[in-house]
Order: sequence, then C-alpha cells, then structure tokens
Amino acid sequence: MGRAVCLCSGGLDSTVAATIARRSGMDVYLIHVSYGQQAERREIEAIERIADAIGASDLMCSRIDLFRNISALTTQGARIPRGEEVSLDSESTPPTWVYCRNTVLLSMAAAYAEYLGAHSIYVGFNAEEAMSYPDNRPEFVEQFNALLEKAVASFSRPPKVVAPLVDMRKKDIVRLGADLKAPLELTWSCYLNGEIHCGTCGSCQHRRRGFVEAGIPDPTEYQH
Amino acid sequence: MGRAVCLCSGGLDSTVAATIARRSGMDVYLIHVSYGQQAERREIEAIERIADAIGASDLMCSRIDLFRNISALTTQGARIPRGEEVSLDSESTPPTWVYCRNTVLLSMAAAYAEYLGAHSIYVGFNAEEAMSYPDNRPEFVEQFNALLEKAVASFSRPPKVVAPLVDMRKKDIVRLGADLKAPLELTWSCYLNGEIHCGTCGSCQHRRRGFVEAGIPDPTEYQH
Repeated sequence: MGRAVCLCSGGLDSTVAATIARRSGMDVYLIHVSYGQQAERREIEAIERIADAIGASDLMCSRIDLFRNISALTTQGARIPRGEEVSLDSESTPPTWVYCRNTVLLSMAAAYAEYLGAHSIYVGFNAEEAMSYPDNRPEFVEQFNALLEKAVASFSRPPKVVAPLVDMRKKDIVRLGADLKAPLELTWSCYLNGEIHCGTCGSCQHRRRGFVEAGIPDPTEYQH
Repeated sequence: MGRAVCLCSGGLDSTVAATIARRSGMDVYLIHVSYGQQAERREIEAIERIADAIGASDLMCSRIDLFRNISALTTQGARIPRGEEVSLDSESTPPTWVYCRNTVLLSMAAAYAEYLGAHSIYVGFNAEEAMSYPDNRPEFVEQFNALLEKAVASFSRPPKVVAPLVDMRKKDIVRLGADLKAPLELTWSCYLNGEIHCGTCGSCQHRRRGFVEAGIPDPTEYQH
C-alpha cells in the first residue's frame, strides 16, 4: 500500500484522518508543525501518544517561526475568542485565522512526502472548519493537487492530498473515529495550553458538541 | 502603488526582481527564509545591505527547520557538487534539489503578503534555474496563483506572484540589473559559507558566466 504522510495537529479531525490511512494498510508518517500556536506543547504530547497508538512509522516534528507575530492564535498571551464570539459563516473569517496557514503546512507535508516517496498526504480538513477557513475547502485541496503536479522533481511522482473528512461535520467525524477505534481520548483540540481542555474556546466547543451530537461518551476532561 | 513582498535569497536574481518592484514605485517588503542552506549566514548579511540599498520598507528573516536533513544543500558538511557535475537538462534534477522548496518558500511569502495586504509577491525565478528546477517555471507560478485564489481569507485580496525574470537567462538578468542600478555587488550567490564566493559551485559558475556573457565587469571576488 505504500507510504502516506499525515499532516496532524494532534486534534480530533487529523487523528481520524491518519487512522483512516493506517487502517487502509499504508505506512503512516505523521508530520506536526509548531508555528507558534499556544497549544503546541500539548499538541506534541498528544501526537507522540497518537503515533504509538495507531502504529505510525515515524513522526516528524517541525518548526516555523513566521507566524509568531501575525495571528491571535500565535501571539503568546493573546486573548483567544470564546466559541460564541466566533462567527461561523463564510462572509467573515475569525480572529483565529492564521494567514495562509494550511498552504504553508501542506507545502511542508508535500516536501516530506516527496522526500519519503509517499504518494498520499492525508489531512483532517472538514466541513465544519471550512465554514470559517477557506484553506479547508475541497476547492483548495483540488488547487493544491494541481500545484503539486508542477512542484516536484522530474524523478518524483507528485503526491496527492487526500481529505477523507472534507464533507463531514464534527459529529460524523466522532462517529467514524469511534467506529475505527481511533485514539480519540489521546487527542488535543484546545487552543490553549492548560493541563486539561479549557472547554470554552471555539475548538473545545466544536469538540464537545461533536461528541454530544454523535451520542458518544466524551472522554475529554474540560475545565469549564 | 501599494506594497510588494519580495522573496529574496540575497542572490542575483531575486535582488534584481526586488529592485524592479522598488523602481516601479512599490513599497517593498523583503522576506528571507533560512531553511538550513549552508550559506544562510552570508545570505542574511547580503540581504540586510540590499534592503538598505534599494530602500526596502522592511525585512522579514524567517526560519524553518524541516529541510535540515533532507537535501545536500542543507546538510552541514555535505559535498556540494561542482558546476560541471550538475546536469542542466529537464530529465534529471540535480543533487542540490530541496524537496518542494519554492512551494514552501512561496507559501511563506504569501502568508506575509496576506498579513501586509500586499497584492504582489516578486520572485527571481528565471529560465536558467528552470532548466533544473521545476518550481521555477512559468507553469508553476501560474498554478500557485490559481491556488492563492482559494487560499486566503474572504476579507483578503489574493496576492499574485510576479516573476519578471521568468524567461530570462543569467546574462540578461545581469544586464537588466546593471541598467536598473540594482546593488549586484552586494549579492551573495555561493552555495557555501566562505568569506568570499567559492567560484566553483554551480551557483558561482552561473553567476560568473552571467557577468562574462553580459560583458559587464564582475564585482565579485572568487576564491578559485
């Protein structure tokens, strides 16, 4: 089945996507990027355990410093908006927007995939995130794949981005994850860096609602 | 005229491209990326002086660690092939290939451009590099621009990559740079990290031949 690179934050969606790749028989190479997000330490702790749990072949933890001063999500001490304040319509983009984030992160995953000779790059992009973030949408994935056809060396086969959750809402992702026995209990979704999930940031609220709507017991401990 | 981000290595091509942007009246924001290339310290010294010389509005020096172990160009102490050993046809890609390098670097420039509200991203891609590196070709630029249409927030105008040298050979770039009074004497092309240009790596050989063929005195001091 060959190799797949999985761009993984240690969160729910990308962990389910990586689990799909692994269950389909591929050798999975996780890549995590620390770009200054407040939760980066928690994410790395989560992804190290996730890598073991799903039987990943390797985990690449990479760093980039560009974003550290250009987003609320990456400015230490910045106030992360609570869930209710974040508008989830496509007309306005929330203050948690990190400029061209997935373009940068996917490019890094593509470099890693070309290096490994991996033909697929799995991502956790989904319909819920896509409401706010354009770089989670199917048309973004399609254009990125068109770019990869022109971006790799003549001796490489261009890898292809695979977004198995692209049309799914959080509850469906939780259900699918539970069906696949993805290690949902190890994932970290919170924007903050606490000992446990804060329970109130937009990302925690999505996670919480996902479990409730899926009718699946939520293994997460929330502060509020 | 607004703002332009210029992706600049401190070398000949990108410095001429940045000079074109500046001379056309735009406020120029240089971005340099240290990705582990052996010459990164020399490049930054060069670009700091270039920024002053062309009147850049700002210089963003950014770092990324992904490439440090996946290319001859970024492995400390690795043997950089001499010019003659590097095949410049499109069938084989030289050992100086850094996987998806320009995809990653342009993505970072795009993030910086979206942050600044810059509508253009100038790059020094040219016909000479394009013979070896696919991510210097017009069709790569075209696909990248198509991607940017899908990659930025709804409140942002997608920036556009401008590659004014894309069809030019080194001698034409040297001539154009001289005509525009670009600070060619401040640029650093060498793959290595010496006090002066080595004169024998592929990049030095291109530089050298460019000045000779352009019939313009070469301000560069070479070791060999």
